[in-house]
Amino acid sequence: MAFKILLIHGPNLNLLGKREPKIYGTSGLDAINAQMKRIAEENETELRVFQSNSEGALIDAIHEAGDWADGIVINPGAYGHYSYAIRDALSAVNLPTIEVHISNVFAREEFRYKSVIAAVVIGCITGLGWRSYACGLQSLIAVLQERVNQT
Amino acid sequence: MAFKILLIHGPNLNLLGKREPKIYGTSGLDAINAQMKRIAEENETELRVFQSNSEGALIDAIHEAGDWADGIVINPGAYGHYSYAIRDALSAVNLPTIEVHISNVFAREEFRYKSVIAAVVIGCITGLGWRSYACGLQSLIAVLQERVNQT
Amino acid sequence: MAFKILLIHGPNLNLLGKREPKIYGTSGLDAINAQMKRIAEENETELRVFQSNSEGALIDAIHEAGDWADGIVINPGAYGHYSYAIRDALSAVNLPTIEVHISNVFAREEFRYKSVIAAVVIGCITGLGWRSYACGLQSLIAVLQERVNQT
Amino acid sequence: MAFKILLIHGPNLNLLGKREPKIYGTSGLDAINAQMKRIAEENETELRVFQSNSEGALIDAIHEAGDWADGIVINPGAYGHYSYAIRDALSAVNLPTIEVHISNVFAREEFRYKSVIAAVVIGCITGLGWRSYACGLQSLIAVLQERVNQT
Amino acid sequence: MAFKILLIHGPNLNLLGKREPKIYGTSGLDAINAQMKRIAEENETELRVFQSNSEGALIDAIHEAGDWADGIVINPGAYGHYSYAIRDALSAVNLPTIEVHISNVFAREEFRYKSVIAAVVIGCITGLGWRSYACGLQSLIAVLQERVNQT
Amino acid sequence: MAFKILLIHGPNLNLLGKREPKIYGTSGLDAINAQMKRIAEENETELRVFQSNSEGALIDAIHEAGDWADGIVINPGAYGHYSYAIRDALSAVNLPTIEVHISNVFAREEFRYKSVIAAVVIGCITGLGWRSYACGLQSLIAVLQERVNQT
Amino acid sequence: MAFKILLIHGPNLNLLGKREPKIYGTSGLDAINAQMKRIAEENETELRVFQSNSEGALIDAIHEAGDWADGIVINPGAYGHYSYAIRDALSAVNLPTIEVHISNVFAREEFRYKSVIAAVVIGCITGLGWRSYACGLQSLIAVLQERVNQT
Amino acid sequence: MAFKILLIHGPNLNLLGKREPKIYGTSGLDAINAQMKRIAEENETELRVFQSNSEGALIDAIHEAGDWADGIVINPGAYGHYSYAIRDALSAVNLPTIEVHISNVFAREEFRYKSVIAAVVIGCITGLGWRSYACGLQSLIAVLQERVNQT
Amino acid sequence: MAFKILLIHGPNLNLLGKREPKIYGTSGLDAINAQMKRIAEENETELRVFQSNSEGALIDAIHEAGDWADGIVINPGAYGHYSYAIRDALSAVNLPTIEVHISNVFAREEFRYKSVIAAVVIGCITGLGWRSYACGLQSLIAVLQERVNQT
Amino acid sequence: MAFKILLIHGPNLNLLGKREPKIYGTSGLDAINAQMKRIAEENETELRVFQSNSEGALIDAIHEAGDWADGIVINPGAYGHYSYAIRDALSAVNLPTIEVHISNVFAREEFRYKSVIAAVVIGCITGLGWRSYACGLQSLIAVLQERVNQT
Amino acid sequence: MAFKILLIHGPNLNLLGKREPKIYGTSGLDAINAQMKRIAEENETELRVFQSNSEGALIDAIHEAGDWADGIVINPGAYGHYSYAIRDALSAVNLPTIEVHISNVFAREEFRYKSVIAAVVIGCITGLGWRSYACGLQSLIAVLQERVNQT
Amino acid sequence: MAFKILLIHGPNLNLLGKREPKIYGTSGLDAINAQMKRIAEENETELRVFQSNSEGALIDAIHEAGDWADGIVINPGAYGHYSYAIRDALSAVNLPTIEVHISNVFAREEFRYKSVIAAVVIGCITGLGWRSYACGLQSLIAVLQERVNQT
Repeated sequence: MAFKILLIHGPNLNLLGKREPKIYGTSGLDAINAQMKRIAEENETELRVFQSNSEGALIDAIHEAGDWADGIVINPGAYGHYSYAIRDALSAVNLPTIEVHISNVFAREEFRYKSVIAAVVIGCITGLGWRSYACGLQSLIAVLQERVNQT
Repeated sequence: MAFKILLIHGPNLNLLGKREPKIYGTSGLDAINAQMKRIAEENETELRVFQSNSEGALIDAIHEAGDWADGIVINPGAYGHYSYAIRDALSAVNLPTIEVHISNVFAREEFRYKSVIAAVVIGCITGLGWRSYACGLQSLIAVLQERVNQT
Repeated sequence: MAFKILLIHGPNLNLLGKREPKIYGTSGLDAINAQMKRIAEENETELRVFQSNSEGALIDAIHEAGDWADGIVINPGAYGHYSYAIRDALSAVNLPTIEVHISNVFAREEFRYKSVIAAVVIGCITGLGWRSYACGLQSLIAVLQERVNQT
Repeated sequence: MAFKILLIHGPNLNLLGKREPKIYGTSGLDAINAQMKRIAEENETELRVFQSNSEGALIDAIHEAGDWADGIVINPGAYGHYSYAIRDALSAVNLPTIEVHISNVFAREEFRYKSVIAAVVIGCITGLGWRSYACGLQSLIAVLQERVNQT
Repeated sequence: MAFKILLIHGPNLNLLGKREPKIYGTSGLDAINAQMKRIAEENETELRVFQSNSEGALIDAIHEAGDWADGIVINPGAYGHYSYAIRDALSAVNLPTIEVHISNVFAREEFRYKSVIAAVVIGCITGLGWRSYACGLQSLIAVLQERVNQT
Repeated sequence: MAFKILLIHGPNLNLLGKREPKIYGTSGLDAINAQMKRIAEENETELRVFQSNSEGALIDAIHEAGDWADGIVINPGAYGHYSYAIRDALSAVNLPTIEVHISNVFAREEFRYKSVIAAVVIGCITGLGWRSYACGLQSLIAVLQERVNQT
Repeated sequence: MAFKILLIHGPNLNLLGKREPKIYGTSGLDAINAQMKRIAEENETELRVFQSNSEGALIDAIHEAGDWADGIVINPGAYGHYSYAIRDALSAVNLPTIEVHISNVFAREEFRYKSVIAAVVIGCITGLGWRSYACGLQSLIAVLQERVNQT
Repeated sequence: MAFKILLIHGPNLNLLGKREPKIYGTSGLDAINAQMKRIAEENETELRVFQSNSEGALIDAIHEAGDWADGIVINPGAYGHYSYAIRDALSAVNLPTIEVHISNVFAREEFRYKSVIAAVVIGCITGLGWRSYACGLQSLIAVLQERVNQT
Repeated sequence: MAFKILLIHGPNLNLLGKREPKIYGTSGLDAINAQMKRIAEENETELRVFQSNSEGALIDAIHEAGDWADGIVINPGAYGHYSYAIRDALSAVNLPTIEVHISNVFAREEFRYKSVIAAVVIGCITGLGWRSYACGLQSLIAVLQERVNQT
Repeated sequence: MAFKILLIHGPNLNLLGKREPKIYGTSGLDAINAQMKRIAEENETELRVFQSNSEGALIDAIHEAGDWADGIVINPGAYGHYSYAIRDALSAVNLPTIEVHISNVFAREEFRYKSVIAAVVIGCITGLGWRSYACGLQSLIAVLQERVNQT
Repeated sequence: MAFKILLIHGPNLNLLGKREPKIYGTSGLDAINAQMKRIAEENETELRVFQSNSEGALIDAIHEAGDWADGIVINPGAYGHYSYAIRDALSAVNLPTIEVHISNVFAREEFRYKSVIAAVVIGCITGLGWRSYACGLQSLIAVLQERVNQT
Repeated sequence: MAFKILLIHGPNLNLLGKREPKIYGTSGLDAINAQMKRIAEENETELRVFQSNSEGALIDAIHEAGDWADGIVINPGAYGHYSYAIRDALSAVNLPTIEVHISNVFAREEFRYKSVIAAVVIGCITGLGWRSYACGLQSLIAVLQERVNQT
């Protein structure tokens, strides 16, 4: 395999497709994960997926990724608005990371305007529904490929 | 049974009655739960109780309630002041919810003035000691009954 | 009679049940007062009711309550968001007081998030419609009873 | 008569023309009221006028207007900067309302920049002296006429 | 008589000496008024006294003072923290005015740090108990005398 | 002609009547300009009209007005919320100016509450649809007439 | 052609590839435009490109797009941080729009954290270099395709 | 002697009467000190006077007063707006202290609204010119006398 | 054993010595723990160590310490900046606690300036690398010893 | 010629000497430019001058300077308070730049306290009238000379 | 001599040239003073120089200058960011004053953006190294000369 | 001697042990200094001690330490909350410095939460009474020793 990537879904994303379809769309998390795996395979990339509602479990997963992964795609959910602990975890493992959000967080409630992890990621994609994930994964693979080429 | 309700106790409430009696009173959590069960029974309502100090576990419990409960009474403890993840969970399962606090949070430290979940609940009861729970439960049952009657 | 309680309705509450039913429900103020009187009677409590749109008249009523009442249930309406004079009045007469709001003020406009009287009351109940009053009155009677018992 | 309109003057406006002519001009309140009555008559409109320095009396007048008036022109004076109770009164009676100020409040002290009632009125006119009233009244009549025409 | 002065007591000051003696001392309002009358007489000054809990009534009294008084001593109570209407009234009648507070408002709750009328008075005296009034009255008489002398 | 007035329409107002009719009404800019010209003629006033989406072009037009116009009616559009350059231009040419807005800017998004040019105009009219322009133009002519009379 | 899309480059982007390569990369604007045209062609989409340093010219281009385009991809440059006029223009033409930034604006200076146009676009992509444009264009085409399919 | 009091003048007060008479009056510091000594003598009180422009010297003087004085009258000048060190000094020696200002600091620049020492003094007198000192001294003597009487 | 102390390491500290040595130094957590155990032994103190990335698990550990420990040394990591739940836990068990940070948090990003638990601990030590722990542990033992001596 | 320098005048500066002489003095822009040319000649420096009221045109001129100039003296006018686009332009061409203002912007309205371009210039000169330009130009030449000498 | 000027160096400037050459350059204070004396002599001006790290000593020097100097050039160092006492001293002596800073304070830490003395000086020069002093002195002499000429 | 260290005590610390023992403990400054000297001797370190209430004198002492000391332990007292001049002094001499506070400043008044010197010191120790000094001194010696070892 070319690269190894961890795809992290934060709190409440296990409900995706089941609730509040106006905001989050009708694709379930399984459908999104399947689509992401297909994109990964097309790019000869190994994709592992992790979802948890627990801040601590998400940090643990990020730490472990430090031992095997080449990069991270993360939808931090609401933790993105206040979890400095997740920020520190991303900063510590120091893997290229892309932040994605399904909805356009900047057009919703004001507390969603702020991402405390944005400063430690490469970039951020919002509001494109499941395509936020696709864009994020494809871009991360391209970034990783570029770094290989530069060596 | 008429209704099914989940009663959630957030962080540190397991210590109720054991510590800081000036602020939280002398009723232990077991005593409160027993009293709430009695109120539930008198109203032919099934009451399940859950306490955890873990934000993730609280979110999991809210998610599961989406599959079986008719409503939620929640004392979010300190998480009520910053857990946008719990707010999103409540918003996602979309059950009628009442927020309760044992102490009058608005008369204590300033950071306690703000409830990030208040915007997604029906109402909020503070400062009445164990009666905050009783008011919350009785009101929730009445609200549920009313909705049945309207159908 | 066991106790004597003053029930205060602040500005605009005379219109209750006549306007904006989506926010304030369809129960008129008379209906609520009748219901509260019933609860009072059941608890051998004398309930006097006062409504005014005038800040000064509300303060006068609170002062007078200092001479005859054992406690106060108050829905301060919009004055609750800025009337430090009413706060001082409550603080001066020093009677056990419970603040109630019909709607969930914390889920409406931002200026409604702040209660300047919250710091001088026992507790606060919001969002339960006319039940906010019922909860408030019942809890106040219970609190008064408890104090009697402790003596 | 075509329409019935209430013209409300808030606190300190009874002094108009007598004091601080640099800010408020030299027209007394009687002169302004006479002029407004003339405009009303020319438009076959009944105009009632009310002035009070008391927040509660102003709220009472707004409530009563709910029973007879088609619209309101209000100069809230300084109450416009903090009276959420007057805002709620206007919101409750739900009549088309236009806010007027004699001086350019936005060019004076900073606390005058904020109008807490602006969000519940059709529009706001400032700084045109007694013409603020004329503009407000004429525009309100036109708006009311338009609504009649649309029916 | 040399001068005519209006002494205004704002909301809750009618309770003076009866409640919260730790903050407001044990002198009743009558005692203070008597003492102030004595000071006035010694200075050949006519002193009229007015107390009200109503913002509108206080404004009315200030307006009337514009027709007969040479100056004002005012304890605005809690209205001093938010009543821009009283500020405008003082500004309109434009009489030399001194603001007094019995307690040291700057050492109590933070909302008491701010006086919205301070900008339109000559000076302000806080924290000296009933002596705040005495200082205020004596200083006002001295200021008035000085102005007479300058003519 | 009695007076010469420049009517300025800021950014996006060329779209008036074509888009977002709920907020801006259905009158096109041409219709408004025609109506304004009629009012001007009735008052023997020359009215020139200018619209641009460019901040620089608006400033140029204001500068040129300094050479021929007696006053300005300006709808600054969104530039009104941040263009200190337009403010400086108005301040520099020092012509009597009235600011108008079609919608009630104070009841829309929060960033629209602030007008950086309000401090350098005579007054401001909002929320009256095309009538905001009419009020503004008529008032400006009256102000100019008054100044002539005073000389 | 399936769709017609306008690609807008805001101020300073004409310098792309020539200056500050650490932040903006080494791809010139022509290279990016060529790449975008290739993506457009592969999707049978017509792509027109526009760059200007003038706020007014950008607004004009958005207005014109209202007459021919199906959607917009915009890199607003620094105007994105304060140009409410561009926001209003986008809001007025009401075309599906995606905002892109080459650098991770959220990890640079604080004033770049805020996008005043974010609330009127579908989504936002930052920090992916020229890939931000590719992601934005591909996602917009997909969104447009989806809307056609739903009809 | 009955009491011993320290009168402290902070920075720039040595210029009193020589400069900016519009704000600070025409009485020189010597004249004020003489008048204060007279008041002290009349009350059988020893008054020592200290002026310095140095924050450290003022703190030293406060410390020494802890060894001999019964109370302090202090005009902290501009240090009152930011010197937490002087506040700590007053708090440490714990003598009854009255703060005085010649001008009405609350009606001048905004930075003068805040007194960082107000929380550790008995009361504060502003705006009465040299009478601020007289009021302060007389009140302090009265307070000290009262304490003696209470023993 | 003289005392029993719990040493808590918050989120991401398990990576100590492995990542970001510029900020956190090169000592691994095991090395620090060993050194702390040595200090504990020298002082006849039992030291138990706990690390977790989970907020809930940290709260559980604090609760349990309430049953066996005499004091706590805690490095809350990023949770120290927002976990009011941990604060409440510390406050509830009410054991003497010292907060330590390896890096000088006040010289890093602004969000690190604020410690929400500082108000419920005895003291705080930052920036001394592993010595922060040593200082914290030694000081806690000394404090405990002192309390024993005072009995 | 030794050096090539661009002197930029921002919005409204074309009116210099014609309006508001109290703030901007009586020297016209031509006079200032002539004086600057004389200083340039004395230092064997080529000076080109550009003035525009359009933000876009100013950015274009800065960009072009990147191709021929050795440095920039800029009076950004009001754009200096909010034009991040001009800031980015200066940052992109990366020429040594000195910011000048004719008036003491820090002593005028509060919005003028902030210069968004200050962080990308060498230094800033305010309040010296036309001498601000002279100081700025002379200093820039000296800085450029120094750099030559260091090579 | 034509004029008499006081050059004041605030705290830490005695270290100039010895420390932090990246920020403050390599010219020592003596070298700067020598250069300033040369400029003064060339303009037939007497220049006295004063440096102190003590706020009180600086205030004393400003006061004394009121008796002999025609103007002041001051580098207030860090005191410029919070010393309202120095501001009051400058305001009291009311001499034409120019503020200078060696480094570009606006491009350093945020607390350096604010000058509390800027409002009482003619102008401010920053970031030009020792040339800030030269510009300041030359401009002050020119201003003084101009005033002489105007008489 | 191995190292030379300056121990600085800021304002009001000369009163240590004499006043406010609840906050500052009962150890006098002499006792603390004696204890620190003992620690210094045990580590073959020369310790010089300096206390002053004057900001300028503290800055002078820091400057002089630049000529002889290897490091500084400083308790800045209240100056730590606002003295940017002391911060600049520490920054200029650039010696390894540790900040200590006797009380837990973060648990007292809000203005004590902020240390303006924290960004230029190695670390900070609060709340440990006289042990704050001991920790600070021991840690500084250890840091110095480590640096020697690294050479």
